Amino acid sequence: MAIVEATAAPNLGPELDQLHRDLADAHVLPTWIYAPQIVPVEPKAGYRPYIWKWQRMHELLMRAGELVTPDRGAERRSIDHINPDLTDSASHTLATAIQLVHPGEVAPAHRHVAGAIRFIIDSGGGEVYTRVEGEKLYMETFDLVMTPKWTWHDHRNESDNDILWLDALDYPFVNMLRASFFEPFDGNQQPTTKPTGFTEKHIGRARPADWKSYPNEVPLVRYKWAETKALLDDMRGQDGNPHDGVLVEYVNPFNSGPALPTMCCFVQLLRAKEHTQSHRATTSTVYYVMAGEGFTVIDGIRFDWVEGDVFVVPPWSWHEHANGTADDALLFSVSDRPIYETFGYYREQALEENGGHQEVTSTHTP
Amino acid sequence: MAIVEATAAPNLGPELDQLHRDLADAHVLPTWIYAPQIVPVEPKAGYRPYIWKWQRMHELLMRAGELVTPDRGAERRSIDHINPDLTDSASHTLATAIQLVHPGEVAPAHRHVAGAIRFIIDSGGGEVYTRVEGEKLYMETFDLVMTPKWTWHDHRNESDNDILWLDALDYPFVNMLRASFFEPFDGNQQPTTKPTGFTEKHIGRARPADWKSYPNEVPLVRYKWAETKALLDDMRGQDGNPHDGVLVEYVNPFNSGPALPTMCCFVQLLRAKEHTQSHRATTSTVYYVMAGEGFTVIDGIRFDWVEGDVFVVPPWSWHEHANGTADDALLFSVSDRPIYETFGYYREQALEENGGHQEVTSTHTP
Amino acid sequence: MAIVEATAAPNLGPELDQLHRDLADAHVLPTWIYAPQIVPVEPKAGYRPYIWKWQRMHELLMRAGELVTPDRGAERRSIDHINPDLTDSASHTLATAIQLVHPGEVAPAHRHVAGAIRFIIDSGGGEVYTRVEGEKLYMETFDLVMTPKWTWHDHRNESDNDILWLDALDYPFVNMLRASFFEPFDGNQQPTTKPTGFTEKHIGRARPADWKSYPNEVPLVRYKWAETKALLDDMRGQDGNPHDGVLVEYVNPFNSGPALPTMCCFVQLLRAKEHTQSHRATTSTVYYVMAGEGFTVIDGIRFDWVEGDVFVVPPWSWHEHANGTADDALLFSVSDRPIYETFGYYREQALEENGGHQEVTSTHTP
Amino acid sequence: MAIVEATAAPNLGPELDQLHRDLADAHVLPTWIYAPQIVPVEPKAGYRPYIWKWQRMHELLMRAGELVTPDRGAERRSIDHINPDLTDSASHTLATAIQLVHPGEVAPAHRHVAGAIRFIIDSGGGEVYTRVEGEKLYMETFDLVMTPKWTWHDHRNESDNDILWLDALDYPFVNMLRASFFEPFDGNQQPTTKPTGFTEKHIGRARPADWKSYPNEVPLVRYKWAETKALLDDMRGQDGNPHDGVLVEYVNPFNSGPALPTMCCFVQLLRAKEHTQSHRATTSTVYYVMAGEGFTVIDGIRFDWVEGDVFVVPPWSWHEHANGTADDALLFSVSDRPIYETFGYYREQALEENGGHQEVTSTHTP
Repeated sequence: MAIVEATAAPNLGPELDQLHRDLADAHVLPTWIYAPQIVPVEPKAGYRPYIWKWQRMHELLMRAGELVTPDRGAERRSIDHINPDLTDSASHTLATAIQLVHPGEVAPAHRHVAGAIRFIIDSGGGEVYTRVEGEKLYMETFDLVMTPKWTWHDHRNESDNDILWLDALDYPFVNMLRASFFEPFDGNQQPTTKPTGFTEKHIGRARPADWKSYPNEVPLVRYKWAETKALLDDMRGQDGNPHDGVLVEYVNPFNSGPALPTMCCFVQLLRAKEHTQSHRATTSTVYYVMAGEGFTVIDGIRFDWVEGDVFVVPPWSWHEHANGTADDALLFSVSDRPIYETFGYYREQALEENGGHQEVTSTHTP
Repeated sequence: MAIVEATAAPNLGPELDQLHRDLADAHVLPTWIYAPQIVPVEPKAGYRPYIWKWQRMHELLMRAGELVTPDRGAERRSIDHINPDLTDSASHTLATAIQLVHPGEVAPAHRHVAGAIRFIIDSGGGEVYTRVEGEKLYMETFDLVMTPKWTWHDHRNESDNDILWLDALDYPFVNMLRASFFEPFDGNQQPTTKPTGFTEKHIGRARPADWKSYPNEVPLVRYKWAETKALLDDMRGQDGNPHDGVLVEYVNPFNSGPALPTMCCFVQLLRAKEHTQSHRATTSTVYYVMAGEGFTVIDGIRFDWVEGDVFVVPPWSWHEHANGTADDALLFSVSDRPIYETFGYYREQALEENGGHQEVTSTHTP
Repeated sequence: MAIVEATAAPNLGPELDQLHRDLADAHVLPTWIYAPQIVPVEPKAGYRPYIWKWQRMHELLMRAGELVTPDRGAERRSIDHINPDLTDSASHTLATAIQLVHPGEVAPAHRHVAGAIRFIIDSGGGEVYTRVEGEKLYMETFDLVMTPKWTWHDHRNESDNDILWLDALDYPFVNMLRASFFEPFDGNQQPTTKPTGFTEKHIGRARPADWKSYPNEVPLVRYKWAETKALLDDMRGQDGNPHDGVLVEYVNPFNSGPALPTMCCFVQLLRAKEHTQSHRATTSTVYYVMAGEGFTVIDGIRFDWVEGDVFVVPPWSWHEHANGTADDALLFSVSDRPIYETFGYYREQALEENGGHQEVTSTHTP
Repeated sequence: MAIVEATAAPNLGPELDQLHRDLADAHVLPTWIYAPQIVPVEPKAGYRPYIWKWQRMHELLMRAGELVTPDRGAERRSIDHINPDLTDSASHTLATAIQLVHPGEVAPAHRHVAGAIRFIIDSGGGEVYTRVEGEKLYMETFDLVMTPKWTWHDHRNESDNDILWLDALDYPFVNMLRASFFEPFDGNQQPTTKPTGFTEKHIGRARPADWKSYPNEVPLVRYKWAETKALLDDMRGQDGNPHDGVLVEYVNPFNSGPALPTMCCFVQLLRAKEHTQSHRATTSTVYYVMAGEGFTVIDGIRFDWVEGDVFVVPPWSWHEHANGTADDALLFSVSDRPIYETFGYYREQALEENGGHQEVTSTHTP
């Protein structure tokens, strides 16, 4: 620990210098010097916005597809987005990855405290499922599927095509808190103990009268893209959110809360030539470009994106989105906002100058 | 970022090596290698248990008392306990410090997102107060006083003696989340806008009928030591908690929840020769020794303590307490447990072997 | 008021008699006499179980169809089930009725504090809807539709056939509490302000991000029979509830609570020859026979039922159900249980003697 | 049942008359006639405001004191206020009574679903207590003491003087719902199992860490008059509530909710010559005059009151209070408002005409 050296203390004479050295030796820190560091005036993300371009990600993942097979220990064939300023995740709380499962493969069963969502990039059109707590959840392109914390899950591709999806997990938050537990299933796959569609059918509006015995905080349902798309189309004519265009949130069907207690999920439609106004919030968000072309300006830097790209907006960073084309653009996103709302830490600010638009000072070149 | 180098991957040939290098260059991480790192099998605190001995702390603080005066910018004359394995706090979520205010001094008014508690070590017996949101809260030895998040507060010593207290703040958690805001008050002191005892009188069992307009999540009351002591004395004859002796929790008088949404506070009585059994939890706790002599065994290391010492138990660390004398020992403690309970991350485990007692493998020498 | 006369006081001499008379004159009641009356040892319903036979109800409603037209003031062409021991409802908290709307008719728009549900007996197969807060909810046979408290609603039949449904309202509870307000809409019909299916589409699992501005405690969705039937079929092989067979509850999609804050709704399947065991609860329930033939024994009286019959089980009355045939029997029911659970007044008791079966002492003859 | 006769139906010809008769015979009610009766346009209390003058109540209770002794079966020596328009209570939901316990007497132990509060009129200055769940709660003049539902309780006067108090119970609401259970204790008195002051000491701001195992929804504490009076004095200089003067509510120390889930309790100070403005609410309230002289205008009728009087304001009745003297007037009151707020049935309306003052059309003469 090198506390005193780290900060330029006012020159208060040799006695004070000696005190500061002695404090450091005794593993205490002088608040009169460190206050600005330990209680920042406003959030400092400490990491940059970043974009991972699909073309490169896809190429790397395909190579992994030839060289690596998921099994016990390796667990998954996925590549995690690592912010250049962080150790093992895209944001300080959220980790995202792209996962590939070949026909016939199984990603082995395990469970962990970290909760996860899957957003299907390309289902291949066939029989692919994640199995959670003994129930198969079949997945189609742009479906969203939950794996709540500490639930057994494995993935299996029974089709003739690859399946690709975006994973998002809260393990950075869990690890911040030193709360991680992981347990491999005894055997590669867990048995299927419930018929397909069991939860969908049993945890709807009409439920078995004893449904309160249902064990999970989040029901094991799939958010079907067809339904979400119908809603977006229905909302297309509305004004929309000034910062996000037509914005839809996925909710927990049990209590209308966020999709997971730590993560909320959105899909947003940017209509032809739509360019939103900037705002910033205490939260971080990872975006996946489902369709279209456009750009997002984050703290003055323009990030151009096309289908398949993934980018992260750090906390308290100004950001605005633009669809540069005459077609729809669609962004899926996952945010750590529920954590902030739980503790009253959520703050949001709209950019008022310049019609809500940032000055673009540079363009990101991958 | 040097991902590949960080972990010894199985030797899978040059093509895989090249893939791993290319992934690192592209700022993605191969889950098949990093899974054990990002989803640990059980919590790893990543920092050690530690003790700060009172004699040394007191000596350093007295020297600071001669050399440093709290003012705008320096803000406070306090010394923060820094775990040797962490950057600026005692645990990953909790920061504690010892603060000294001389007669006649003012620690200037400000507010921050981080919440704070004060546990009075020695009030000096005179008129000393912290003023929160315009209300003076006078403090006596072993009282506990809250400063909920984002409330204006300054401290003033109007007595003829020094006052010393233990501060505990959640700024490490706030900073993990990049949620800190800080605002200095315009002027050194805030005005007193409410008579002394206002909240005490107005937010009791009988309340003004419009009390729901009260602005704070936590009422500005002081937990008087005399009342807490009476309860401890009353409970003295009970069996007590196997891990903590006679254990008392301070609750939020509004809702019986934890003292603050992120921190809970306890005082525990270890009776003559009482030696508790070990357990561990996913949470971290900082202890302040109010009275007595004894020791705590943390993950096999014995930490001897006397009055005034402060020590930290990291997450998932076995710990048991022992009062080595024929007199009472009293420990005040603050824990991050509410954060864990909020997200379902709280786990606790009792040591079953050896009658619940750890093997002591070493004794900590400060 | 004739208190003293109402109860046989012990003969305590002329002075006490005079005191009792004076108390009555002064409008006070001697607890020493009235305690058993005002604090009963166990619930006394004060009204009988009863059954309304469909054949007779249908005949009466058809005659009303020829003689009465719903309009402002008359409001509805429906006939309310009146327990012979009560003034204006089937149970002390619940009112049910059978309503008929002819092709082309409108039941005019109004709103009231009383909440309502509609269970469709026969939709006629065409375009019929209830319009709630500007949104048309089309109804098919055995669908369930909500009208939460204080929502504007009118009904319209645009088909070529009659529509018949069961209404259930909580107006007896509202009136007990003297909490009723009623307001006619200015005009016979309210305008349609939302496209058909609006709520269904907007308040699903994916929702407009600003959905929390949705004004009603209960979303305006229809519980489609096809979905409920699929669940019942799926549960058919289970053991079922010992008192109710295969039992399904309709829940509020916003919070998984009861269908309305005062009323919960169920459908139950009694399989071929299934005969349930008796229990009793502090609540009251009204049943509608959707299909099949059977009987229910209520406090020793056998009530035989066929399709279309409605019967009421008063509080704290033993009851068991039997399907006497080799086909399915289906009962829809509405209960006041949420009121009791809210205040901790819900109690339930299973009959333990005689294998859970009551002795039948008589058969009800309508 | 005589439905048809009860209402003057429009003359619609003999066929309709016959239908109405047949409906009545079949125990169904034509909504087209009864709608206004079953869904009133606004609340109709159905009972009058009323006042019970202390002088008369006291005289009657003293006579009861000579003639009646509380024992098992008679249970209590108390006289219940019976609204002249109701069967057994002051309001439709609330029952109040005045109770007398002589020196040396015991009111035997029992429990019931109905919850109760005691407001002490005159403690006699000595050792008198109600014992709830094994704990003695000593009572002084103007203290408020809770008996939550289904808790064992007996009363004992160990002093040399009579004790008099006001009881308020929710048995009318419990009985409306047919939810009453009553159980006598096996023996006249329950044993004392906890030391005096146990709950007071154990369920304060510092609590035994395992306090969540505390069995009651409401802690067994006494609201001491000295504390409430201090608050009222402190608030004396404020503007106060336009309808109620200086108004203080007693809250449940566990959750800041109402004193009991069904009843809330208030004390209000009407300062010298203070005359409040009228309002009305869907709830009912019973007032006890603690001190002073004044009057309350209820739906145009002036009720003059002096110390000791009890009066009831029915639902949706305009009411305003006036202190006619140059001294303080104090009113204790109990209201059923929590029931209404639970279901969203609470409505309140301020009188806007005539400066918020009703026209007095008559004066009540007892």
